[in-house]
Amino acid sequence: MSNAADAALPAHWGPPYLLYLGSAADDLAIKTARGLAHWRPDWCIGQYRRPDCKPTLGLFEMNMTRARSEGADTMVIGAANAGGLMSAEIVADAIAALDAGLNVAAGLHQKLRENPDIVAAARRNGRVLFDARDPIRNIPVGTGRPRAGRRLLTVGTDCSVGKMYTALALERAMRQRGLPADFRATGQTGILVAGSGVPIDAVVADFISGAAEWISPVRLDGGWDLIEGQGSLFHPSYAGVSLGLLHGAQPDALVLCHEPTRQHMRGLSDCPLPELKLCLEANLVAARLTNPAVKAVGVALNTSGLARAEAAAACRQIGDLLELPCQDPVTMGVEDIVDSLLARCAN
Amino acid sequence: MSNAADAALPAHWGPPYLLYLGSAADDLAIKTARGLAHWRPDWCIGQYRRPDCKPTLGLFEMNMTRARSEGADTMVIGAANAGGLMSAEIVADAIAALDAGLNVAAGLHQKLRENPDIVAAARRNGRVLFDARDPIRNIPVGTGRPRAGRRLLTVGTDCSVGKMYTALALERAMRQRGLPADFRATGQTGILVAGSGVPIDAVVADFISGAAEWISPVRLDGGWDLIEGQGSLFHPSYAGVSLGLLHGAQPDALVLCHEPTRQHMRGLSDCPLPELKLCLEANLVAARLTNPAVKAVGVALNTSGLARAEAAAACRQIGDLLELPCQDPVTMGVEDIVDSLLARCAN
Repeated sequence: MSNAADAALPAHWGPPYLLYLGSAADDLAIKTARGLAHWRPDWCIGQYRRPDCKPTLGLFEMNMTRARSEGADTMVIGAANAGGLMSAEIVADAIAALDAGLNVAAGLHQKLRENPDIVAAARRNGRVLFDARDPIRNIPVGTGRPRAGRRLLTVGTDCSVGKMYTALALERAMRQRGLPADFRATGQTGILVAGSGVPIDAVVADFISGAAEWISPVRLDGGWDLIEGQGSLFHPSYAGVSLGLLHGAQPDALVLCHEPTRQHMRGLSDCPLPELKLCLEANLVAARLTNPAVKAVGVALNTSGLARAEAAAACRQIGDLLELPCQDPVTMGVEDIVDSLLARCAN
Repeated sequence: MSNAADAALPAHWGPPYLLYLGSAADDLAIKTARGLAHWRPDWCIGQYRRPDCKPTLGLFEMNMTRARSEGADTMVIGAANAGGLMSAEIVADAIAALDAGLNVAAGLHQKLRENPDIVAAARRNGRVLFDARDPIRNIPVGTGRPRAGRRLLTVGTDCSVGKMYTALALERAMRQRGLPADFRATGQTGILVAGSGVPIDAVVADFISGAAEWISPVRLDGGWDLIEGQGSLFHPSYAGVSLGLLHGAQPDALVLCHEPTRQHMRGLSDCPLPELKLCLEANLVAARLTNPAVKAVGVALNTSGLARAEAAAACRQIGDLLELPCQDPVTMGVEDIVDSLLARCAN
């Protein structure tokens, strides 16, 4: 994988990974590492935990030197503390990893490249630093011109409703059927899972659709790009990102993601969620600007807040309302949605 | 006006202005300077032209030293050459202005602050550099929460159809009626005319709506903020900017801007313009997310490509179609649109 942070540097980083959990306090703090272990188990050869680390991924415990001798290429800092800051402990451990000969990748708000001690250690050891929140430079402005390839975008009623998980679940299910399919990442966790991508909320506003075009270029093998959605057309903070991504993705297919127990838009206690039908229709209308043939093919429901029977009932009800297959990708898989995709976008 | 380029520096720049035309080849090249001379005549005490400069604004000719002794505070580089680059000539003249004791402001792609000789001259003379394309730092994320004040946003079928001109014409007409009204700038020319603002296409994508909220904060005097629109919801390259601006502006009133002879979306020869009714309705629907009471109050037509009789007919036809007053702000003024605004947004 190329080092997006510095276009002048042709250095590469990538799997096998040592997953760094540090002093994580709970499961939420290791969300990124868990995503990697779940979606790319073959890439993850071990975990590094400090003595006070509470959660575990159940991987082999190893320090940086051991990981390097076992063949690890890159240590991924897959644990976040409050604010995405880099503690003195994380800095020391990143330097230890570089001194052991590993590259280091992270998705923290504070960047590896902005810490002079880490930069010095990388230089000293000829290693690569990768900050997943660094946008790629020199992305062209989007054009909306039709391009070859088949693309699916996950869209949402809100932020954090399962858009990344759904796109990755579709990738796995389609590959298991022997279909060429590739997850395309637009957020920092997704970028670490995919090994490439653009943190689309961090690009300059004029280049949102250009970035979406850039991550899903012309494709001629008949396969699908499964593009990770961001935000929601109905989130007052981030809808611009969602619209630019929708136009740039030029999707043939949309999957609507939703969390049925969500009381209000994430972070905005006085902003209600959009009606499902209205939300899906607004996404289809906007998507038609760059792909008039776009179709909705399914609904992905995050039912973690519901009992099993309630979850099944919610899927039935929403599926009937929108006349689409509706599944929880975590507990029910996405086979019905893949069937629908292949049937509705057959030609 | 505060120096947005460097939050640590409390220095100020502002009128009176010396307008720098340099070696401009034609009227298009001095668009920014002409905007300043047109909208802020009281601020502009003179112009500086090189011997080979073709266009003129008809202001007093003066060099930097003379301008300073006449009371000028800032030289505004109001002329662009191809690509917005800074020629050796512009660099030398900027340094001469700083050495004469003037501050220097510019809206070029290449930034004053990125030229070490200009920066050294500013330091040496204790002067301020202002790059209108520099986004303000540390803007918060938008919230969409209702805020006091009355706001009008100009929206467009396309880029470059008169959104800035219309907002400024409304400001002038409303002030002439004794109404408190302030233009709020979102692009570099507008920022130089207003003396403040945010180049909204240059902020990081997550902060588009936050930037729009920031430039039009709570207002309690019953007056209007007249916000300069950008792009179009129907432009595949920039719609994300337009949507974030629409949500953050939280407008009570929209004025739709259009150029009736435009053959295709600017820069995209295969992308047609949206239907006017569809375009206005899409803007209203999206605006309702943060202001359910939003109303369309008028249409501003750029009829520079039409003969006089055709222009009048086009205004009648479009006004009838959308059931709104329709005027060319340049040739017909905006009085009907102001009447409509005051009638439709009376309470």
